Amino acid sequence: MSTVPILTDGDVYSQYDYELVVDAVRDAFAERAAGTLEAPPRWRVAAGEGDLVFTAGAATGSTNAAGFRVYETHPETGADHTELVAVFDATTGAFRGLFLGHAVGGLRTGGIGGVAIDALAPAESATLGVLGSGFQARAQVGAACAVRDFEEVLVYSPTPDSRREFAETADDDVAPSVRALEDPEPVVRSADALVCATNSTDPVFDPEWLQSGTHVTTIGPKFETAHELPLEVLERADAITTDSIPQLEAADRPTIVGRETDDELVELADVLADPDRGRSSADDLTVFCSVGLAGTEVVLGNSFLEAFASSAE
Amino acid sequence: MSTVPILTDGDVYSQYDYELVVDAVRDAFAERAAGTLEAPPRWRVAAGEGDLVFTAGAATGSTNAAGFRVYETHPETGADHTELVAVFDATTGAFRGLFLGHAVGGLRTGGIGGVAIDALAPAESATLGVLGSGFQARAQVGAACAVRDFEEVLVYSPTPDSRREFAETADDDVAPSVRALEDPEPVVRSADALVCATNSTDPVFDPEWLQSGTHVTTIGPKFETAHELPLEVLERADAITTDSIPQLEAADRPTIVGRETDDELVELADVLADPDRGRSSADDLTVFCSVGLAGTEVVLGNSFLEAFASSAE
Repeated sequence: MSTVPILTDGDVYSQYDYELVVDAVRDAFAERAAGTLEAPPRWRVAAGEGDLVFTAGAATGSTNAAGFRVYETHPETGADHTELVAVFDATTGAFRGLFLGHAVGGLRTGGIGGVAIDALAPAESATLGVLGSGFQARAQVGAACAVRDFEEVLVYSPTPDSRREFAETADDDVAPSVRALEDPEPVVRSADALVCATNSTDPVFDPEWLQSGTHVTTIGPKFETAHELPLEVLERADAITTDSIPQLEAADRPTIVGRETDDELVELADVLADPDRGRSSADDLTVFCSVGLAGTEVVLGNSFLEAFASSAE
Repeated sequence: MSTVPILTDGDVYSQYDYELVVDAVRDAFAERAAGTLEAPPRWRVAAGEGDLVFTAGAATGSTNAAGFRVYETHPETGADHTELVAVFDATTGAFRGLFLGHAVGGLRTGGIGGVAIDALAPAESATLGVLGSGFQARAQVGAACAVRDFEEVLVYSPTPDSRREFAETADDDVAPSVRALEDPEPVVRSADALVCATNSTDPVFDPEWLQSGTHVTTIGPKFETAHELPLEVLERADAITTDSIPQLEAADRPTIVGRETDDELVELADVLADPDRGRSSADDLTVFCSVGLAGTEVVLGNSFLEAFASSAE
């Protein structure tokens, strides 16, 4: 048997907390700002009925971790799907550990969202609005509540059972109360920070509902021909940010940001290093387009391995 | 804990045999000849003091397996180095299992060498000559002896203790007797099949020693500026083969074959499909340049997983 830790989703979910998740992802962005994060575009390999997709990266500063995540895009057939996240020592190349499942990938996307809200949402944010009630939405709520003292979380998704179940589960996860609403409009109208975490290929809210001063994160589709965010939000935005401009540009279809809007697109790492590049007033409308900066899953996996090692001592 | 098999070198070495190794690799070449083997060039990612190198592939015919191998190129510091080989179902994307260590990578290179000797060495081969006494040389001897009834194996490497220890160990592995010689000349002169498996950047034998009719395999360096094979061997060769022309062409430095000699370079898969493209007479000098066709490690890993599953029943 292997002496290197091999961890499953059960192992991660029994021990993680969102402060650790956000801290790890913030470290990764600090390395990106310092120029010590390797984060090449994904590598996609034909693998039968689907592809294998690799995101690799290395944080060669104080984190000293390298590695990769791999997932597959095979159609749903009822078979188990899993991702692998592998972590190596960036100096010696020693293999440190492996994660099997979806926890690290999902939590790091949550962590990226948390760092974005911390950097861009109004300091006095009372209400977190969430459109979507899936796996990604849950991690977004957890991480957002680790960076801001929200008073309430309001969630809408089209299926009543899904949004109610989400609200009940998330309510146990975070300090503020989480409520499901039957209508997206009051969710959007009252949000200081609004997270869209859907699979929708059409805009999921009416931009008229959006108040100035709101921060909006989009996790789901962001292609020109398929996007959950109304394009008017980008037109109104005072700052448009993303975790990786090169990954946006390497997407296999044109995206709603990063082409004609190059001049205004700012990387989150640069906002962290120079907050003036993000929100400059309480009335600013800010947008964050999450693409999943490579290397962040490796840095988070490395933090989990360190936490597991110290809890086992 | 994971319910998917995670296997170490100890697990593999306790159960493998070279017939299985050669058969699996032969299946991979049959899929390549049939156009059902995906084998893109490697992907190399900067990862601190070294790189992570990914070889991915899929055999979408009867094998129905996809996956990858990853290794790192960090300098030797005494830290543990390991490779990962992951296997997925090519139809459903289900994760089938993982290998940690060097066994699958080394054995599949041996298996490729065995398939090459089976396809190219004289039918009546009595003597296998080996230059080199490392990990790769051992797998080459095992696989070669699985495809030909050699009467003897002669090995030379510069360090007396290494070649003696190699001969003693390999002698337990294979049917013919394995002897270490103090001089490479009689090894080369008497070889019907000669395997060079060194790290040498200079030619390891005098081409004058090489008899017509010999098959020569080169496993080690094959760059224009660093090669274990004397270039005269390529000039004299009647057939020059490799396991992957695209991988040779994607090498980061010019190689000794595949550029000016394009016309004569033949893929091993094509020799298997049409033996006339390989050896055409007992006097032919044949050469095989092993580059490690992507996908072969996945097919071999898949065969090991099947063998482990049936032995566990």
